[in-house]
Amino acid sequence: MATTYRDAGVDIDAGDELVERIKPFAKSTRTPEVLADVGGFAGLCMLPEGIENPVLVSGTDGVGTKLKVAFLVGKHDSIGHDLVGMCVNDIVTTGARPLFFLDYYGTGKLDVDVAEQVVKGIASACRESGCALLGGETAELPGMYAAGEYDLAGFAVGVVARAKLVDGKGVIAGDRLVALRSSGLHSNGYSLARRVLFEALGLSPSDRPARLEGKSVGEALLTPTRLYPRHVQAVLGAGVDVHAMSHITGGGLPGNLPRVLPDGLGVRLRSSWSRPAIFGLLAQRVEEPELRRVFNLGIGFVFVVAAEHAQRAIDALAAIQEEAIDLGEVVRAPEDTEFEARVVFE
Amino acid sequence: MATTYRDAGVDIDAGDELVERIKPFAKSTRTPEVLADVGGFAGLCMLPEGIENPVLVSGTDGVGTKLKVAFLVGKHDSIGHDLVGMCVNDIVTTGARPLFFLDYYGTGKLDVDVAEQVVKGIASACRESGCALLGGETAELPGMYAAGEYDLAGFAVGVVARAKLVDGKGVIAGDRLVALRSSGLHSNGYSLARRVLFEALGLSPSDRPARLEGKSVGEALLTPTRLYPRHVQAVLGAGVDVHAMSHITGGGLPGNLPRVLPDGLGVRLRSSWSRPAIFGLLAQRVEEPELRRVFNLGIGFVFVVAAEHAQRAIDALAAIQEEAIDLGEVVRAPEDTEFEARVVFE
Repeated sequence: MATTYRDAGVDIDAGDELVERIKPFAKSTRTPEVLADVGGFAGLCMLPEGIENPVLVSGTDGVGTKLKVAFLVGKHDSIGHDLVGMCVNDIVTTGARPLFFLDYYGTGKLDVDVAEQVVKGIASACRESGCALLGGETAELPGMYAAGEYDLAGFAVGVVARAKLVDGKGVIAGDRLVALRSSGLHSNGYSLARRVLFEALGLSPSDRPARLEGKSVGEALLTPTRLYPRHVQAVLGAGVDVHAMSHITGGGLPGNLPRVLPDGLGVRLRSSWSRPAIFGLLAQRVEEPELRRVFNLGIGFVFVVAAEHAQRAIDALAAIQEEAIDLGEVVRAPEDTEFEARVVFE
Repeated sequence: MATTYRDAGVDIDAGDELVERIKPFAKSTRTPEVLADVGGFAGLCMLPEGIENPVLVSGTDGVGTKLKVAFLVGKHDSIGHDLVGMCVNDIVTTGARPLFFLDYYGTGKLDVDVAEQVVKGIASACRESGCALLGGETAELPGMYAAGEYDLAGFAVGVVARAKLVDGKGVIAGDRLVALRSSGLHSNGYSLARRVLFEALGLSPSDRPARLEGKSVGEALLTPTRLYPRHVQAVLGAGVDVHAMSHITGGGLPGNLPRVLPDGLGVRLRSSWSRPAIFGLLAQRVEEPELRRVFNLGIGFVFVVAAEHAQRAIDALAAIQEEAIDLGEVVRAPEDTEFEARVVFE
């Protein structure tokens, strides 16, 4: 008996159908820089005009076990939004404007409907971030993933003029921290969050504990990651002297703020902002130091700006309906201060 | 009892150790364009000088269930080479020079030794391809992957001057196909190959069937994907009038050659090249049409060149010790010819 690819679990027709279904989504993200309908093996993108000494800025990320919540709830239309957010929020910390995005979708047996929902979410977030969904790979790997599961990887490229690169080198003591709220966990700490909520607290995704103020556990956990490219453009466009930017991703505030601080500097944070409700639930079983080093605790992105420009940054954000948080300031820290200890919560 | 991230299966220390171990590998791939030691959240790369109207060319791919063979054999030092090959061989079809590469490594529980081997292979292939390993994400997703398993996604970006973009539009009947040998399956068709070899033929990875001329099944299956960037540079650098290039990836010759052919054209192939031994073994249980549409059958990359330039291409390749294959020619095909039928095997 002859054996075929389909016998071995790979359905080329399903892959082809998915490609057809997602074409309009990808098309909806096209920017003027995209060279469409050229080249069969790769995505093609020009550089925007007028960028002197362009620096390409790139990053890759996944969404961790937030995926497991999507599987459990059976909701796949916003996890792609998370994927884009995790990647573009990283690259805009350099002052870059996102140019294009590619995704990798790995699964055991391709479910075209689920994959379509995922890619639709990716495309929607690409549009909101001003970047083109330029390509992707859908890999059907029989026996590698549990039934109904998949993994996602995202890849974003942006561009910034070399003279406008924001690299943290100009940060000095006295600089102010102007912060943007997160919408919840974003896409970090889900292995711990799931352990606490579903095991330690015995909750199910449809439960609506009083602390969540009407939301279900599943809704709170699947709240999409906020996208910060437009906030970065607003602040830079207002001429704010931005010395550094930090995306509060895995590792929380203590793990991410020091990544953009020169040696000898730390930050002092006012711990007074209001945390999204989900963190109150997690605090029932996770101690404060661990909460801080795993979760963003309500702060998704931080601008480090010259003290005299803090109000200008806040005003620029207010102009796009964003109520920024005056998070604290840059302070001196002994050179030998341990990485995370450079972040002090008041 | 308080719960921690480590209790939930995520070992931040293992991740940090991996980062330290792979730093020298990444450093070994640095090109003059890389801005090192700048920017904490993203990879930074300048454009090479003197490229007018630069077009960024990008692609993403994985290595499919070739991974399953790596797991079975316990050999992880060349699968990263495959990952780079699958991506850069796609982007160079446009005439682009690879600039940088990023990888995503997803696993249930991070095995630092295994991940180090994988990244070492990635870095080695990046060096050979002339591109910088600019970043990566190692995601520990408890409960998402079977013990000892992982998935890989790669992302490559290259650049080409717009006027030098190779896009297939210049292909005409009479153009010649100059082809490069593959080393074996490269990274496609492994679900079918594993089904045939391990199930239908009952072989194990350590078996050495006569047809494999001394190699074990595991060795034959893990033969690294060839990297074609230097071949492309050699041919373009020799001033060959290249009308199109095709990477023979998933879908084989019938699935990939038509991707770069204008409507109304097909190709006629001389079926006389010698196939790597592994395909003889697979042919015992897979019929010829299915073999052709799943595997590369020994052809990894094809240049479509002006007829009068075919010899120049062959000579340019001979100069870098590559014995090219005169694979056939471009012919007219009725506009309504089905995609794969545009490739005729003589």
